Amino acid sequence: MSLKLNCDLGESFGSWKMGLDEAVMPHIDQANIACGFHAGDPLVLQKTLALAKENDVVPGAHPGYPDLVGFGRRSLKTTAAELKAMVLYQIAAIDGMATTQGLELAYVKPHGAMYNDMMANDEVRATIMQAVAEYHKPLVLMLQSTPKADQHLEEAKALGLELWFEIFADRCYDDDGRLLARTKPGAVHTKDKMLAQVRQLKEQGTVTTVSGHTLNLRADTLCVHGDNMEGVNAIQDIRQLIQS
Amino acid sequence: MSLKLNCDLGESFGSWKMGLDEAVMPHIDQANIACGFHAGDPLVLQKTLALAKENDVVPGAHPGYPDLVGFGRRSLKTTAAELKAMVLYQIAAIDGMATTQGLELAYVKPHGAMYNDMMANDEVRATIMQAVAEYHKPLVLMLQSTPKADQHLEEAKALGLELWFEIFADRCYDDDGRLLARTKPGAVHTKDKMLAQVRQLKEQGTVTTVSGHTLNLRADTLCVHGDNMEGVNAIQDIRQLIQS
Amino acid sequence: MSLKLNCDLGESFGSWKMGLDEAVMPHIDQANIACGFHAGDPLVLQKTLALAKENDVVPGAHPGYPDLVGFGRRSLKTTAAELKAMVLYQIAAIDGMATTQGLELAYVKPHGAMYNDMMANDEVRATIMQAVAEYHKPLVLMLQSTPKADQHLEEAKALGLELWFEIFADRCYDDDGRLLARTKPGAVHTKDKMLAQVRQLKEQGTVTTVSGHTLNLRADTLCVHGDNMEGVNAIQDIRQLIQS
Amino acid sequence: MSLKLNCDLGESFGSWKMGLDEAVMPHIDQANIACGFHAGDPLVLQKTLALAKENDVVPGAHPGYPDLVGFGRRSLKTTAAELKAMVLYQIAAIDGMATTQGLELAYVKPHGAMYNDMMANDEVRATIMQAVAEYHKPLVLMLQSTPKADQHLEEAKALGLELWFEIFADRCYDDDGRLLARTKPGAVHTKDKMLAQVRQLKEQGTVTTVSGHTLNLRADTLCVHGDNMEGVNAIQDIRQLIQS
Repeated sequence: MSLKLNCDLGESFGSWKMGLDEAVMPHIDQANIACGFHAGDPLVLQKTLALAKENDVVPGAHPGYPDLVGFGRRSLKTTAAELKAMVLYQIAAIDGMATTQGLELAYVKPHGAMYNDMMANDEVRATIMQAVAEYHKPLVLMLQSTPKADQHLEEAKALGLELWFEIFADRCYDDDGRLLARTKPGAVHTKDKMLAQVRQLKEQGTVTTVSGHTLNLRADTLCVHGDNMEGVNAIQDIRQLIQS
Repeated sequence: MSLKLNCDLGESFGSWKMGLDEAVMPHIDQANIACGFHAGDPLVLQKTLALAKENDVVPGAHPGYPDLVGFGRRSLKTTAAELKAMVLYQIAAIDGMATTQGLELAYVKPHGAMYNDMMANDEVRATIMQAVAEYHKPLVLMLQSTPKADQHLEEAKALGLELWFEIFADRCYDDDGRLLARTKPGAVHTKDKMLAQVRQLKEQGTVTTVSGHTLNLRADTLCVHGDNMEGVNAIQDIRQLIQS
Repeated sequence: MSLKLNCDLGESFGSWKMGLDEAVMPHIDQANIACGFHAGDPLVLQKTLALAKENDVVPGAHPGYPDLVGFGRRSLKTTAAELKAMVLYQIAAIDGMATTQGLELAYVKPHGAMYNDMMANDEVRATIMQAVAEYHKPLVLMLQSTPKADQHLEEAKALGLELWFEIFADRCYDDDGRLLARTKPGAVHTKDKMLAQVRQLKEQGTVTTVSGHTLNLRADTLCVHGDNMEGVNAIQDIRQLIQS
Repeated sequence: MSLKLNCDLGESFGSWKMGLDEAVMPHIDQANIACGFHAGDPLVLQKTLALAKENDVVPGAHPGYPDLVGFGRRSLKTTAAELKAMVLYQIAAIDGMATTQGLELAYVKPHGAMYNDMMANDEVRATIMQAVAEYHKPLVLMLQSTPKADQHLEEAKALGLELWFEIFADRCYDDDGRLLARTKPGAVHTKDKMLAQVRQLKEQGTVTTVSGHTLNLRADTLCVHGDNMEGVNAIQDIRQLIQS
């Protein structure tokens, strides 16, 4: 399987627009679609699904914490039962709307703080894995590729859950396989470095860390961003590189 | 088919409790379950579905306007596209959660102001009918039985949609087949009158109006209320009367 | 008193940006600042107030219906008590934050559907007038200038309330002094027509309607828009015209 | 100054009722009134203020995280700027509404997770102190009495802020002066033990910890609960004990 491109979409809300969804959709494989809790309202959801269908893009649920004003980027300490229910609710909402449009929901990628909590906290990850595994259709969980990928695969296997690992095309990795904090110099790659990172990943399956080490990282999909036209152009360049 | 009993349930929200769901569920056939927009959060939804399953009660979606503070009882002027999307979203959310629990969502009954707008406004009703008809599974729309039932059946038939008509057990009807306004004397029946109305409906398929006229009204299901123990007791009496 | 310019500001919400507040603020006199119910979160509110202070702009409360996804543009049927409380709450929130920054809140202009309901519905207008009059500080109510201005002045006088009438610079009026519906041709003026309308208003205190009649309209302030750079440029032109 | 009684009130929301506000209000001195973010809507706020006025009870702001479904009991990681703005907004909202009713807002007591975060996290406490100190009227901050009270007083003094320390009447303290976790046996006192704790506090200014040690704790006010009639009766007993 070749490397896929995934992007967060459907992040507008009512009169507030966010993201260049129309420009991005033709160039990606997987659309992480907001489900209404941190972004995306029912009408936005419906339009984003229609756009995915037009462009033959695979839709995924992008559930987040119920925090519109914080855009789901603020960690919220929930109980496991609350977290499971809110993930299932959001998956269900987009799944039923996708099926109604003749689309098949394929995967789940948590958003923002929920994603970070999932990667950092074993209990949060266990709860999210259970929620996705318990859903009445088989769905894949998309999460960050790190040196702990094997452990995550085992956790998932015990639940009969499939995983897709994603790499961030434009972010620099540290030696532990984590993203370098955005506050640090070189955390976000220039376009050239980004394309070099993608090429190395494609050809050798490795990433060069901030200190120059080589890191083996599983990669099923690359996370790209479509907030502005620069980002959209970068996506097209990455696309071309992957397909060449 | 004998007369069913339906009741609004799952109307708690977070720490706020509403309704005697545990006490009511054993005595009804159909649970109209709030979907999170006017009441009901994901965890409440999940617990209410589990309770429905335990008691072999058929779950229905009870979508409302997005208005927690107004409990969905305030009319909101939406576009048809917004209304359709919010109905589909809510149906989808509960459907996926119900299926995950091994339940089958059977019908949709709009809540509060959305229900009233549906009965009073042809466009709103057309939009809701389209939303339910368009959903990827066959679902029945539950609405109020009035002298316009035949017109509503035709509207539904054009969309391939099935309807269930409900009668309010404890409310007095006027000669036009509408509910007498709550502000008017005799609008809400005493227990005796309520039971007499149910008996007449069961045996003769008619309702006696406030002025003494006899009205033929289709009745697939009776709407009952479980807000307090008095209501729960009334439900049990109605149940017994129907089954006798 | 010369004609003032007022503009809706502070309409961003969390990560969603709306309006060119920085570009607009230097060119206006009165900022209608969203209070958190239809737009504007506490941090946006605080920043918008700071921007008003920097530019010596008079802040006004811009309360709306509690409807983020609808941006306060959908009519919501509330009780008078609910409406009064939600208006007072929003006024209070911005007033205390303004005073804390050394600013003085001067007026209230309802937003979107609440504004339209206020102009169309006597009860809604009475409730809003009572709320503003009852607030513990004297605040002016800003509303649309129509041929009913005298009636509105009497209503306000009975409550000891001052009114400011606004004219829409870029909108065409019909013979009844209402805004021509946006769906009709010529509803929104070209820049030239807009400037001509402002000039006529300034020099003669009249507006020429869609059918060519001349209408006397009270005008304390002009409503202008800063959604894009075209709008900002128009504001500067209007400003220059007024001051010349 | 004698020991005061404070209680969380105004925690209903729309159709959902919580707390026996009418029964509690006559027996307390200070009402911590929810401000709309975790509980309390504008109408509830207004009614609760009116009830406080009737009973000559001092109103305080009870701000919380913006989390209705979690009732403000879930920790939310905000930036300092977000936290400060949300505290100021909530204080302002209730202050303006209180003043409009002829009441004077006297203090601020954060709610739930915001309260816990304030006690556990120096940065959160610093931000809340700054928000309260910065507000345009002098307001007292109410917080938990612990062995760190002197440190907290120094922090407050640097900002010109007054503090009131509260003790929980019905909770058992550990040797570090923290509340014993609710999951532990004896965490919540029986009525006899509660009254004994209050008597000891009144007469000796001390609390006996779970292990039998004696702890000196500053006490300006006692936190009591009015969720049910048992709680209301307990409040009356405490009241009598304090006044005797």
